[in-house]
Amino acid sequence: MANDLRLGVAGLGTVGASLVRLVSEKSDALARRCARGVRVTGVSARSRGRDRGIDLSGIAWFDDPVKLATSGEIDLFVELMGGDSGAAEESVRAALSSGKHVVTANKALLAKHGVELAKLAEENGVSLNFEAAVAGGIPIVKTMRESLAGNHVNRVYGILNGTCNYILTRMEREGLAFAECLADAQRLGYAEADPTFDIEGFDTAHKLALLTSLAFGCEIDAGAIYVEGISSITIADIEAADELGYRIKLLGVAQRTETGIEQRVHPTMVPKSSAIARIDGVLNAVAVDGDTVGEVVLVGPGAGGNATASAVVADIADIARGDRTPTLGKPAAELEPYKPAGMRKHEGGYYIRLSVYDRPGAFARIAQEMATQNISLESIVQRRRAVRSDAPGSSQPAEPQPVILITYETTEAAIREALEIIASQNVIADRPQMIRIEKLS
Amino acid sequence: MANDLRLGVAGLGTVGASLVRLVSEKSDALARRCARGVRVTGVSARSRGRDRGIDLSGIAWFDDPVKLATSGEIDLFVELMGGDSGAAEESVRAALSSGKHVVTANKALLAKHGVELAKLAEENGVSLNFEAAVAGGIPIVKTMRESLAGNHVNRVYGILNGTCNYILTRMEREGLAFAECLADAQRLGYAEADPTFDIEGFDTAHKLALLTSLAFGCEIDAGAIYVEGISSITIADIEAADELGYRIKLLGVAQRTETGIEQRVHPTMVPKSSAIARIDGVLNAVAVDGDTVGEVVLVGPGAGGNATASAVVADIADIARGDRTPTLGKPAAELEPYKPAGMRKHEGGYYIRLSVYDRPGAFARIAQEMATQNISLESIVQRRRAVRSDAPGSSQPAEPQPVILITYETTEAAIREALEIIASQNVIADRPQMIRIEKLS
Repeated sequence: MANDLRLGVAGLGTVGASLVRLVSEKSDALARRCARGVRVTGVSARSRGRDRGIDLSGIAWFDDPVKLATSGEIDLFVELMGGDSGAAEESVRAALSSGKHVVTANKALLAKHGVELAKLAEENGVSLNFEAAVAGGIPIVKTMRESLAGNHVNRVYGILNGTCNYILTRMEREGLAFAECLADAQRLGYAEADPTFDIEGFDTAHKLALLTSLAFGCEIDAGAIYVEGISSITIADIEAADELGYRIKLLGVAQRTETGIEQRVHPTMVPKSSAIARIDGVLNAVAVDGDTVGEVVLVGPGAGGNATASAVVADIADIARGDRTPTLGKPAAELEPYKPAGMRKHEGGYYIRLSVYDRPGAFARIAQEMATQNISLESIVQRRRAVRSDAPGSSQPAEPQPVILITYETTEAAIREALEIIASQNVIADRPQMIRIEKLS
Repeated sequence: MANDLRLGVAGLGTVGASLVRLVSEKSDALARRCARGVRVTGVSARSRGRDRGIDLSGIAWFDDPVKLATSGEIDLFVELMGGDSGAAEESVRAALSSGKHVVTANKALLAKHGVELAKLAEENGVSLNFEAAVAGGIPIVKTMRESLAGNHVNRVYGILNGTCNYILTRMEREGLAFAECLADAQRLGYAEADPTFDIEGFDTAHKLALLTSLAFGCEIDAGAIYVEGISSITIADIEAADELGYRIKLLGVAQRTETGIEQRVHPTMVPKSSAIARIDGVLNAVAVDGDTVGEVVLVGPGAGGNATASAVVADIADIARGDRTPTLGKPAAELEPYKPAGMRKHEGGYYIRLSVYDRPGAFARIAQEMATQNISLESIVQRRRAVRSDAPGSSQPAEPQPVILITYETTEAAIREALEIIASQNVIADRPQMIRIEKLS
């Protein structure tokens, strides 16, 4: 049997503590699967004194993660600190440069420096694995990197952020406002004190950037992603979606088009009958459409200490067994440059909610503007708000009324043009709401 | 770059032909992923003359698959002939013994000889991979063997036979009888001329036997599986399930119990809200419940030439890259003996449909017998069939009426005992229908 694989774990938050516990508790089973022992020999975290409920006796402590990364005590560096620069970046670079394998759950770091770090790993003949960085416990990285080897991927999409999905699910089920659901998510530990990163879609974008590279064999370009979060979604949108046969999900979508690869993160209306519509609460789901296999969907817990640690252990076991798959599926130097498709050319149906002044001719002007842009309407729903009984004949300006439009397939450019002109004509009260409709099975 | 990996493909049916085409069409992408070329150098099939729509020029033809398996022209033998003995068994043994890697889609062969063949592979220092043998294009073997390395599995279950799922879906959606849906499945090529193997659950059992070994690290024991097919399912059952909030699916279930491992294949009532209830048509789905990750569900095409070939290519790519995972996740000699749990002790709720003679006291006797066996009833549905208006007062024996019982959790032994006694008392007309209810999320 080969020598034990010695792990250095930097970052002892929820995931790090789960990992240390897991490696110790499952050491026999792991050794059998990997044909060698696996054990934690060094750790690093901010506060040495804190009680994490794990036994660190016999494990070397490092105040400096870079020292741990380059220590002769370890063969594999596990980076669980987070952040796209600073200690995380320095220690991962140091580990790879000194010939240590690296396993990380850090999507922000890889979204920014992934290709470069993959090259560094290759130059040093070591592995850089990141299953836990995308969709937590779901084995999507391995599936795309290894199981779809015989496929040309056409599209990959998914629910990649449990916080947003939890909020949307509660809004839908209980009719609660966005702010209320967010507050609950924070109370339950599903959302950070500063939730911007999750709810504005940036976390989803980081994960999508990695999936895009795996799917299309191209370089990572998170900056090219169109990102829109869920903070503008109202109960009115959720209810209208429900009536029209849709649910609203925050999706990350990457797809091959004639002009290049489209990457986008935005709230999406998905048919209630689709598999993705039924993924509720903190679960994640990823669907990959391969030209050979068809569509494969993976569903599971996208976050949480244990689920994420499970993915980290899988990466460690691969390295222990000697499996050396390139970080992004093929050698980093062979990744093609990312060629973006113009988002404005995105074709699809749209949901539009307008707050229309109840004045003669207002609706005609809206319909006219849509027609001018060649946008066909699939349905129009105008629901009158309750009107006070003393209102008729009153000289007060009429209250704005919600009008919902569902368009047939059109381009984003046309929609934006139409809405801009409508907004300039003093017929609507607020900024129009626009949600893309995705055709999914 | 290493030498090309040379493949010998035995069996050129739908999957074999797809594979030969795929390896040729994707040779560049495959070479980049595997850091070496992959090409088919030999094939074997029954009829040399048949037009399969693939280009076999430059590929050596072997009439005898065993000769191909041991040929110096190949490094890896792909067995796509099928059958649990004969040519498939002989050629796989010959390939492994002569130091060739083997990739197979043959569940019947592995269900019978898997452990022994895994040992033979290890003794000869080669790989034996079988992703395509379970759930077609879904990467469930790799997920269980590699991605769940940090998990102790509690339960694995799934829809593993597309033919049965197609039949049940059509019965439910269109209210058609079993025989009619089966005939359509045969016409569409989803079911064999002799459909016994699929519809009586044996195909599902073979796949389940392999999943059980991967899940629990035990030897394969397909003979120990309790198997019941779908041919007794009627429209009355499907309609009653629907009214009660369930759907009927043919599931393979393996779960750890206090006494041992339970393996069973049978029609199952699953809550409409569960993920598995929504898998329709020829799709397959597998859910694995790991103690670390929680539940992960994989959904995708379970059959078809291309989907299956996609899984075969993934296995080939692993071998080309040098990934050497043991066939069943750990060395075959370390697999524990399979320790069965007593099926009769299976605890769960039951659906029972009885055809009860409409006579005074009939129902009281049934209720009494259930009570004697300590079986509590969650619901009772008695729907009267349309009765002729001249019936009252007629001296003819009353028509039997369908009565549906849903029990609370009880043991299979108690249910069988109760039904046996009820059947002996001349209160019911036909054999009682009994379907297990599975608690799923």
